[in-house]
Amino acid sequence: MKNLLDIYARKKKDIAAIERELEESIYTDHSMLKEASLHLLKAGGKRIRPVFVLLAGEFGEYKLQTMKHIAVPLELIHMASLVHDDVIDDANTRRGQLTVRSKWDNRIAMYTGDYIFAKALSVITQIPKQAVHQVMSKAIVEMSIGEMEQIRFFYDHEQTIRDYLLRIRRKTALLIAISCQLGAMAADAPDWICNRLYAFGYNIGMVFQIRDDVLDLTGTEKQIGKPPGSDIKQGNITIPVIYALKNPVLRPQLLGELERIQQLDGQTDVSRFIDLIRGSEGIVQAEELSQKYLNKALTALDDLPDRQAKKDLIEVARFIGDRTY
Amino acid sequence: MKNLLDIYARKKKDIAAIERELEESIYTDHSMLKEASLHLLKAGGKRIRPVFVLLAGEFGEYKLQTMKHIAVPLELIHMASLVHDDVIDDANTRRGQLTVRSKWDNRIAMYTGDYIFAKALSVITQIPKQAVHQVMSKAIVEMSIGEMEQIRFFYDHEQTIRDYLLRIRRKTALLIAISCQLGAMAADAPDWICNRLYAFGYNIGMVFQIRDDVLDLTGTEKQIGKPPGSDIKQGNITIPVIYALKNPVLRPQLLGELERIQQLDGQTDVSRFIDLIRGSEGIVQAEELSQKYLNKALTALDDLPDRQAKKDLIEVARFIGDRTY
Repeated sequence: MKNLLDIYARKKKDIAAIERELEESIYTDHSMLKEASLHLLKAGGKRIRPVFVLLAGEFGEYKLQTMKHIAVPLELIHMASLVHDDVIDDANTRRGQLTVRSKWDNRIAMYTGDYIFAKALSVITQIPKQAVHQVMSKAIVEMSIGEMEQIRFFYDHEQTIRDYLLRIRRKTALLIAISCQLGAMAADAPDWICNRLYAFGYNIGMVFQIRDDVLDLTGTEKQIGKPPGSDIKQGNITIPVIYALKNPVLRPQLLGELERIQQLDGQTDVSRFIDLIRGSEGIVQAEELSQKYLNKALTALDDLPDRQAKKDLIEVARFIGDRTY
Repeated sequence: MKNLLDIYARKKKDIAAIERELEESIYTDHSMLKEASLHLLKAGGKRIRPVFVLLAGEFGEYKLQTMKHIAVPLELIHMASLVHDDVIDDANTRRGQLTVRSKWDNRIAMYTGDYIFAKALSVITQIPKQAVHQVMSKAIVEMSIGEMEQIRFFYDHEQTIRDYLLRIRRKTALLIAISCQLGAMAADAPDWICNRLYAFGYNIGMVFQIRDDVLDLTGTEKQIGKPPGSDIKQGNITIPVIYALKNPVLRPQLLGELERIQQLDGQTDVSRFIDLIRGSEGIVQAEELSQKYLNKALTALDDLPDRQAKKDLIEVARFIGDRTY
């Protein structure tokens, strides 16, 4: 399998331009805000959303300047939502780095999120298309409902697969979907192409999050940049767990572990819980579900004109489905 | 002096329409979000920003539908910033009502703020004018820097009048300034009128906040809907205090009180501190400063065409300068 850098190679220059623009966009004289925002930016990330914007833009009239004004705000919105999530999750590390709330405090994390979000808006207003703003603001409303919704399901072992899917739709899939859609829209691609790219992005977003949730249970701290089992420590019950709970033999043991972890508010060793899930069929079933979404994503691309961007989207999609980091 | 209801009487129907739209705009199936948002909305407020939008709109082609799409988001942005501020301030009451963070918790307050803010965006995207969005997003960036900035000045008795003025500019004046400006812009009023209205709103915003800060020291709990001295309990040093600190006799006593309050993290009786300020010239000097801003605001209106909206703006301005609630 190719790695991300190989896939990104063709767009290397434009990705670098976006990286610079990201840095410039959060610039402020206010030293603490600047430090906290830069810390967040430098912690990295795969820049999946910008890459999708760039590739989608190639199905229309590709202008880097326009692409920047879509890619930068989408990545900033993603960053802003992460920093607010870290407050809720009491997370101390992300991508192997201290989180803003742990390096500074929760209040500063909240305001840093507000600031980065505001900056995202000020960049995207450079796009003169009303439809772009409407698509974006609708997705942001959905995302913010999703943020609140996740709290309701903490440690809820009665939740259904559908609850989980709706949650990751809002948490992850929507923003990736509109990254693909808006990249194409801003480049004046035909509506049907924008819609297909939305469908592609949506399904790949589901793959991305399911993969993330599997890796939290199967990966090493080195691979995932945070201790494995972080999800359950935060009360976040993911799809492998929901599947494993369906096994009548495992269920009582898992419920016992879940209760113990919840009572200790996640401040405990969760290796037995992880071992139970690893020994269940939950992981494989989650991977099968992920594969279904991957197939849907690839099908969405079928009718798109054959060009390099299409091949690259397929490569990125396969990478996301198989990634171990 | 007229009260607000008298001044609002002429626009009563449109204000009621905006009130309904505010309620509809935050509607969601998510019960906790709906409850928290409605709680915030029903806690009331003077709806100063919507009123300014409506009056400013009368200097152009006034259409209620368009005015709604400006007034509602501006009030929502104000509400969203209040709920995040309450998290920072550990505030338990506002306008005589429990705050979201106190009725639910800080996490829910943060996400409720995010949600209301997202809803504000989705309403304003119905306005097809790019310039409107640019003005708004720039103001929001400034406001978010101001939020962070205020933390830096908590209990800082070395701060200057300029620090204070810059802070309240971002905290209050900018949003009122753009309420006036955007109301006129959305109604296609000429640029010079939009600019004058911005200047009016900016100066009246300064008056509003100075008056608020004076009332926190001179008002009763019944008048201001929260215990007097709330500002200093949160470490917020306001203009009457900055003036009072300039008095060499009072200064050592005030510094002593400030240190004591800070050491107890605001969890103490502050009546001696309030008495010291009331006995100083700080209150009168703050009122003089407020009067200067009021004069500037009124001057900004001078050249505007004589119509009822101008008379009403003057009335609202005078009310804000003298208000006791």
